[in-house]
Amino acid sequence: MPATDPLLPLDAATPPFFAGVDVGGTNTKIGIVDDRGRPVAFRAISTDVRRGPQEGTDRIGQALVELVGAVGLAAAAVAQVGLATPGTMDIPAGMMLEPHNLPGWNDFPVRDCLSRRCGKPVTYANDASAAAYGEYWRGRGRDFQSLLLITLGTGIGGGIILDGSSLDGQHCHGAECGHVIIDYHENARRCACGQAGHLEAYASAKAVVYRTREALEGGRASSISRRLQAADDVLSPRLIAAEAEAGDELAREIVFDTARYLGIGITSILHTVDPAAVALGGAMTFGGGSSPLGQAFLERVRQEIRARAFPVLAEQTLVDFATLGSAAGYIGAAGLARADHLRNGGRNSSDA
Amino acid sequence: MPATDPLLPLDAATPPFFAGVDVGGTNTKIGIVDDRGRPVAFRAISTDVRRGPQEGTDRIGQALVELVGAVGLAAAAVAQVGLATPGTMDIPAGMMLEPHNLPGWNDFPVRDCLSRRCGKPVTYANDASAAAYGEYWRGRGRDFQSLLLITLGTGIGGGIILDGSSLDGQHCHGAECGHVIIDYHENARRCACGQAGHLEAYASAKAVVYRTREALEGGRASSISRRLQAADDVLSPRLIAAEAEAGDELAREIVFDTARYLGIGITSILHTVDPAAVALGGAMTFGGGSSPLGQAFLERVRQEIRARAFPVLAEQTLVDFATLGSAAGYIGAAGLARADHLRNGGRNSSDA
Repeated sequence: MPATDPLLPLDAATPPFFAGVDVGGTNTKIGIVDDRGRPVAFRAISTDVRRGPQEGTDRIGQALVELVGAVGLAAAAVAQVGLATPGTMDIPAGMMLEPHNLPGWNDFPVRDCLSRRCGKPVTYANDASAAAYGEYWRGRGRDFQSLLLITLGTGIGGGIILDGSSLDGQHCHGAECGHVIIDYHENARRCACGQAGHLEAYASAKAVVYRTREALEGGRASSISRRLQAADDVLSPRLIAAEAEAGDELAREIVFDTARYLGIGITSILHTVDPAAVALGGAMTFGGGSSPLGQAFLERVRQEIRARAFPVLAEQTLVDFATLGSAAGYIGAAGLARADHLRNGGRNSSDA
Repeated sequence: MPATDPLLPLDAATPPFFAGVDVGGTNTKIGIVDDRGRPVAFRAISTDVRRGPQEGTDRIGQALVELVGAVGLAAAAVAQVGLATPGTMDIPAGMMLEPHNLPGWNDFPVRDCLSRRCGKPVTYANDASAAAYGEYWRGRGRDFQSLLLITLGTGIGGGIILDGSSLDGQHCHGAECGHVIIDYHENARRCACGQAGHLEAYASAKAVVYRTREALEGGRASSISRRLQAADDVLSPRLIAAEAEAGDELAREIVFDTARYLGIGITSILHTVDPAAVALGGAMTFGGGSSPLGQAFLERVRQEIRARAFPVLAEQTLVDFATLGSAAGYIGAAGLARADHLRNGGRNSSDA
């Protein structure tokens, strides 16, 4: 995961360079990558949401300019900047609209504000789409022509890259993968968005906690109850994963049911966009590829897709964990900036 | 609907011309359109499936050459041919794989066979994608940048056009809209494909008949029973529509539940690809835009989408009937041929 990997020395890098900015509710990641997507500089700063979007964007721009200088690059060596933000947005207009985890940053022309501050053209993207592009360019999707990224966290997000472009949609609501309906009934589980039956209402971290609490309150015996009573532990996917690893039956059921729901939602998306590969990212992967539980979780997702998708898709679509971790967003933002730069006639290493 | 509309006189047409071929289980439609998608010649021939794909493709090629001559065009005036076929296919290879309603036409290199026969480059497409492109180019989607077409018939098909390209998918399984899952439970209705919970298992013509029969066998009173006993009528969407129009309660429930299921499936697709517009086509639209029942059916689809989709999508995505009828396929195939021709540097009227 490049965020923690050593950075590429500048003399081994391939110009031109691109900057990527991934704005989050707590921190903002700023990185500079070379023409092949390899990070040469990285810095995280506090987003400091309360001080508002104008000051926040100014500080991001300043940190970016400083980072370019600190790594020893001339300002002119950075061809373009990619900027990713969360929440609803107007991508063509470069506007943040209603970013739920950045209260007060509503209706703000963030793209042009950053562009003025750092003196570069800025490509604007949704944060999940940027992460998907990162995985497509440099991560698990690098050998594939198209990619669906599902991000598992408090909610479920997603990004779809087809033919090298992000599927943003007509109203910037493409790849809202958590809001695919898996149960049409009126009594289906409620999503955080208020609607019933969405994948997110079954398979997000919030849903995992809710489903576990429901089972415990229904009288299911589980080592989770003992853990909650003994320590002052909070019910979380991490605690559930630990108990699942220790063999608790309810915890294992919760983890594998989550995988099953994901496989069902992903199948609907495969039958709609048919990508070459699917990557699962985000914080809630039950340990991911490095843990036996994470591997079993992934295998259960694959099993559900194999059981439900058209035979060709079941056999041929790669389904695996994402590989870039939290670096996917800024690397992908930089990659989208590079793609824009190339479309606009910029010269790159591949032209040489 | 151009299939029945008068054809454009040749001296009012804008060159170059493109041919479109839409191969069906019974008939094959062959048309020639001008650079603006207006049909100047049309002919339908029997596909005559039993005589096999080689002879069938030869006859299509011959009919196409004859049609060009009959309308008074020089062979050179037709720049490219578009060919649409049903079933599973390998689009890059130009191969039909398993077309269920053309038994015996398996694993056949139809694109190159037609190209040799008519001496033109041939663009190959899925029939539902071609219809979607037709609606996008000349039909209900002509004022929009992207379009989802849902075709309602024995099964449910679909096509998605984004930025002027058909979303074919990595394995030629894009836009299999009938196979979006709307109910994940194991006891969900079975689809013709064998899987449970697919939209097609609830809202196709076959499902409409099945759900009606189920209700009648369950003892529901309905004028449908009387119609079936009195005449030798067969239970069909047409009969159900007639009884719904006459005010039968069960028939109306079946029609509007079908609309509700469609709205649910479409919402999942909106949350995945976010198109500018959605068009409903195919034979089973309960009379379509020209009948009060069809209009009420459409309004119920819209109502479900408004209730379930993200507010911006609910407000801004057009949902309406398709307008080209059965001409969408050949016009769209010709349009896809034109798009290929332009990509490959061909000169068109818009260059003039």
